[in-house]
Amino acid sequence: MANGADAIASLDPGVAPVASAPAGSGIVYLDGRYVPRAEARVSVDDRGFLFGDGAYEVTRTVDGRLFEGERHARRLARTLGGLDIAVPGAELAALDAVALRLLRENALEEGEAAVYLQVTRGAAVPRTHHFPPAGTRPTIYAAVTRFVPPAALRARGASVITVPDIRWSRCDLKTVNLLPNALAKQQAVVAGADEAIFVRDGVLMEGAHTNLFAVLGGELRTAPATNYILPGITRDVVLELARGDGIAVREYPLLASELPGATELFVTSTTSDVLPVVRVDGRAVGDGAPGPVARRLYELLAARMYGS
Amino acid sequence: MANGADAIASLDPGVAPVASAPAGSGIVYLDGRYVPRAEARVSVDDRGFLFGDGAYEVTRTVDGRLFEGERHARRLARTLGGLDIAVPGAELAALDAVALRLLRENALEEGEAAVYLQVTRGAAVPRTHHFPPAGTRPTIYAAVTRFVPPAALRARGASVITVPDIRWSRCDLKTVNLLPNALAKQQAVVAGADEAIFVRDGVLMEGAHTNLFAVLGGELRTAPATNYILPGITRDVVLELARGDGIAVREYPLLASELPGATELFVTSTTSDVLPVVRVDGRAVGDGAPGPVARRLYELLAARMYGS
Repeated sequence: MANGADAIASLDPGVAPVASAPAGSGIVYLDGRYVPRAEARVSVDDRGFLFGDGAYEVTRTVDGRLFEGERHARRLARTLGGLDIAVPGAELAALDAVALRLLRENALEEGEAAVYLQVTRGAAVPRTHHFPPAGTRPTIYAAVTRFVPPAALRARGASVITVPDIRWSRCDLKTVNLLPNALAKQQAVVAGADEAIFVRDGVLMEGAHTNLFAVLGGELRTAPATNYILPGITRDVVLELARGDGIAVREYPLLASELPGATELFVTSTTSDVLPVVRVDGRAVGDGAPGPVARRLYELLAARMYGS
Repeated sequence: MANGADAIASLDPGVAPVASAPAGSGIVYLDGRYVPRAEARVSVDDRGFLFGDGAYEVTRTVDGRLFEGERHARRLARTLGGLDIAVPGAELAALDAVALRLLRENALEEGEAAVYLQVTRGAAVPRTHHFPPAGTRPTIYAAVTRFVPPAALRARGASVITVPDIRWSRCDLKTVNLLPNALAKQQAVVAGADEAIFVRDGVLMEGAHTNLFAVLGGELRTAPATNYILPGITRDVVLELARGDGIAVREYPLLASELPGATELFVTSTTSDVLPVVRVDGRAVGDGAPGPVARRLYELLAARMYGS
């Protein structure tokens, strides 16, 4: 069984044990200003706080460059559109510059970091379920942290548990309505595992904060990008890399009942990269060790991320 | 069709057009302190803001007394238990006193008011999906506002639309993961209606922030209190009042296909009391006017709330 603390540190952004500054310090961006983290506070009337009414993104940076920044920006725009949160285009376009300035302010222009970005529908009084008046200014928050890739966990392979998928049916929107994800991930941690995989109607959909892939019958299989999974950026990139590398790929539901036939399993995410899964609910996957397809895809991903 | 603005004002807490103080002013309670609302701000690291990781309650007060305060306290404790958020018992027990002091501070000890209470898992760095370390202090926020019951809307009857129930499967927990509720209510407002009713697998479950009742075949019918609906306090009280008044009551799924046979429809909530519904998706319910069962139950509820 994987070591809980290490596993946690590896899968969640900003949980890396090595940090350039003490947790909770540093400069963050909030509503147009760069402020010390301890001073970054939002109104109790913010709809992020009252309704979880917002979108977010986590992006990696290497030596001051955003990895797949455009795809993250497109997905953020898609979530905001799905939630009908209007952010002026110029303000959205400026967010990359905000991230780069945060790297500078926090001395993270060298090496690896992760950028957290959240946009909520803003603060409005009185509290109403329906949207506040047009013109209510969205809240924009961004922060950066040193990031250390989960190399040790990748080498030994992660363990996961399966849990019922109790989420809503718009899992394709990257919103901060994350309670079911938090509860599932906590369940994994309590079980000494690294991630929880949601099962809906017998289908392995994705993890609490990762996408899931299997090697099955010589094919790379992952759930199709429907409303039941988040269209992961790393998922997209890995599919692209696999196809480019001549690996047979099929976006098709993976049944829980097919698991015993899988020779490899791995999860992907912005902060997990390609992470082999060697145990599911305590049972070994394939021969119980990280497999060649995951290794190959991680190498290709790393080459793209770090340059050759 | 109901007047949109009035309808909105009536159904959401704190949206009453008559207020004792300008919106956004007054004294609120945050983490042990009574502070001006404009100064009440939570950390960007609060899990309420980052994950919607919290519980809430809305309670009515009449002349400084909490209506059904004990039931609200029990339900809050149940939600906190479901989310595994640990709040010391003494702190929970003190929340009624917090509400009463807020009424005093805001000169709302006379007449009607609504108390909003929210408890989140607290602020923690770094951000992780799994729970922060034991001992992380939950964030407790409470505010009061003048409340004006929706008398005009009750007299003419509300209109509702039906929408697919896209929510998660723990609708019985009163959490701030409220995006689907907000989106549904907004859809209602855009359609010129007062509330949205969630339909899951052909069953009318409840509203975006109300429970639903029908009079059908001489029986009062409402969805059973499963994981798919919120166990409303007003729902409970109304069931109790109906039984005490000799009205035949059945907690049993109400199919959308049964709607044409309903002679009455109404929604209940802390801020809606018993609110007749006279139109569903533009079609009249019964004879298109508020009915006698809803009127009787409102009278009984009012008698309990205001005294005789």
